[in-house]
Amino acid sequence: MAASFHPPQRTLMGPGPSDVNPRILEAMSRPTIGHLDPAFIGLMDDVKAKLQYVFKTNNTLTLPISAPGSAGMEACFVNLLSCGDTAIVCQNGVFGGRMKENIERCGAKAVMVEDEWGTPVSIDKVAEAIANHPEAVALCFVHAETSTGVRSDAATLCEMAREAGMLSIVDTVTGLAGIDVSVDEWGADAVYSGTQKCLSCVPGLSPVTFSPKAVEHIQNRQQKVQSWFLDMNLVMGYWGGEGKRAYHHTAPINALYALHEALCIVEEEGLEASWARHALHHRALVAGLEAMGLSMQVAAEYRLPQLNAVNIPEGADDAAVRAALLNDYSLEIGAGLGSLAGKVWRIGLMGHAANHKNVLLCLHALESVLRAQGVAVQSGAIDAANGVYHTE
Amino acid sequence: MAASFHPPQRTLMGPGPSDVNPRILEAMSRPTIGHLDPAFIGLMDDVKAKLQYVFKTNNTLTLPISAPGSAGMEACFVNLLSCGDTAIVCQNGVFGGRMKENIERCGAKAVMVEDEWGTPVSIDKVAEAIANHPEAVALCFVHAETSTGVRSDAATLCEMAREAGMLSIVDTVTGLAGIDVSVDEWGADAVYSGTQKCLSCVPGLSPVTFSPKAVEHIQNRQQKVQSWFLDMNLVMGYWGGEGKRAYHHTAPINALYALHEALCIVEEEGLEASWARHALHHRALVAGLEAMGLSMQVAAEYRLPQLNAVNIPEGADDAAVRAALLNDYSLEIGAGLGSLAGKVWRIGLMGHAANHKNVLLCLHALESVLRAQGVAVQSGAIDAANGVYHTE
Repeated sequence: MAASFHPPQRTLMGPGPSDVNPRILEAMSRPTIGHLDPAFIGLMDDVKAKLQYVFKTNNTLTLPISAPGSAGMEACFVNLLSCGDTAIVCQNGVFGGRMKENIERCGAKAVMVEDEWGTPVSIDKVAEAIANHPEAVALCFVHAETSTGVRSDAATLCEMAREAGMLSIVDTVTGLAGIDVSVDEWGADAVYSGTQKCLSCVPGLSPVTFSPKAVEHIQNRQQKVQSWFLDMNLVMGYWGGEGKRAYHHTAPINALYALHEALCIVEEEGLEASWARHALHHRALVAGLEAMGLSMQVAAEYRLPQLNAVNIPEGADDAAVRAALLNDYSLEIGAGLGSLAGKVWRIGLMGHAANHKNVLLCLHALESVLRAQGVAVQSGAIDAANGVYHTE
Repeated sequence: MAASFHPPQRTLMGPGPSDVNPRILEAMSRPTIGHLDPAFIGLMDDVKAKLQYVFKTNNTLTLPISAPGSAGMEACFVNLLSCGDTAIVCQNGVFGGRMKENIERCGAKAVMVEDEWGTPVSIDKVAEAIANHPEAVALCFVHAETSTGVRSDAATLCEMAREAGMLSIVDTVTGLAGIDVSVDEWGADAVYSGTQKCLSCVPGLSPVTFSPKAVEHIQNRQQKVQSWFLDMNLVMGYWGGEGKRAYHHTAPINALYALHEALCIVEEEGLEASWARHALHHRALVAGLEAMGLSMQVAAEYRLPQLNAVNIPEGADDAAVRAALLNDYSLEIGAGLGSLAGKVWRIGLMGHAANHKNVLLCLHALESVLRAQGVAVQSGAIDAANGVYHTE
């Protein structure tokens, strides 16, 4: 008899997946129906409307790509870029680098605007790149860098792109539902996200939205989109809206039940209330970490509340601390990546995981593990965090 | 309060998704853990071993692509073809046409070998194409055509490719676990499938396997794979096997719980027993349909037991019959596609859905609906089906 897999019960405070609300797991386990079933078509319409709400957009082409965030990223690039195009890419972490990979694999040229990891995209450098590369068709940047916990100024960057006659392509995988994502107000042209971050849903889908200008660009392409699976000209026929749905690929039915439930939960709480909750627990976590004597990697004004990069204190063994948290507390936090590998831990407070209990667990567990491993930390983390909760 | 989605309870006897075993839905709803959690790495190893069992292969590069079957198809093409290559494509249904789309989007040339829909790939025509196109790098065909219910001779076609020094690329989305898929015995180089057919799992993943020769071809490519998400050189680092797993993209954790459970179920039943069960219920269904006076589209020797294309009888309104089955019996069967649209219904008997109860329900419901809509059908369908069950 083959053994069924029973996962351990973790508290997920890494860079995602985040703790999934049990309501979502239950919704996902409802009976599978067909991807052309009238009942499913109704669900698709509702998912689309709810995504428009969290993206703050009226864009008709708003839908979940049937694959993880990396595929959502790829969907934006392969549909908007053609061979021979130039695009400006802002890199201040892992995901700007992945944008470059995508652009080059489209046969396009990436002009890089580099900023130090842990800092936001420099508006001045972008202005210079735009001035030097008027031929660029797109300005691409990461709104919420999952690898560093930095927020960049999406409104300004989208405006600069628009004024230069370029399309804006925005990664907000970690942003959506955790901080303000105002697609229409920004005038962003293509924006992608993931389900496993502040939506607290299972990983596997990538919500995307395209402006009317982006849709026009896609419909007027001279070259075919290099990916059949991600070709929005075809996907539109299934998700597009008006009239009969044409079969394109088999949608991941049950994952869409999960996303729908996740979006119901955001709607019930209210988008602004969700952002406020992320901000509150972030302040409490930071107060606790600082009381312990630890320091944050990112300057306060650019911090993402949902992804907290804390500097690894002197004398601490990165991997050993994370292993002890996992083994002794069943608590997952994230390692640093790239130039921040071994220098920071990434503590996520995403969606359902952004709550009082998790903040206290994390502070208590981290303090205990650091002490047990001989790292000097100060007392009072829990009190400092509770101080935030009690005064607000 | 946003309304949660409660799907109707269907019996899924279309071309997929098929009825999902409740064990799989329950397994999928277990708590989400991280994609780099040691417990999850153990699950990945086990999924891989179980996929090797159902594919009958020792291929190291055997894994589920984190997206539906169309992405599994695309993974095979973008990794094995480069711009300027030629590939021979056998088309006898929808999915050969999709192969052509994929090949052309790789900047490669597709040499088409066309056969009538409802018939298998012609070995003679393929031999001719191979003789005329020795420059082709791959021979591509559909083992189990979901659009027509036809099985082609995979063993012979793979052998012909091998003898001509070409790679074989095989679509068995509907084949896996329903009929014999012997990847190593065939000597197939790249084979892709889906989870929502005879594995009876939820849609959203695409099991693939690559031969050592295919892996060597991928590792020695001169051009980068045009898809970052599907680049096997990168995916191997996460799924590949030896040593530390490198983060590539966030795996769809809970969908993999589901696939694991589906593979446990196949293992418990035994692969050969699963094939035999599909064959038995197919014979019973066909006996019933023929007793009713209906005829099958595909010649008996080429029929897929899991996908039964039955000719729509004179006087029957295709869409009205399917709507009545759905509304009055909550039973989904499939429409015809392409040149068979309006001419056939596609009745699936896939995985968990291949059972006695479903066969009887389908025969009874179809007979009642046809009569109610004034189409003359003969009596005795249920008796004929039961006759098969009682004599075997």
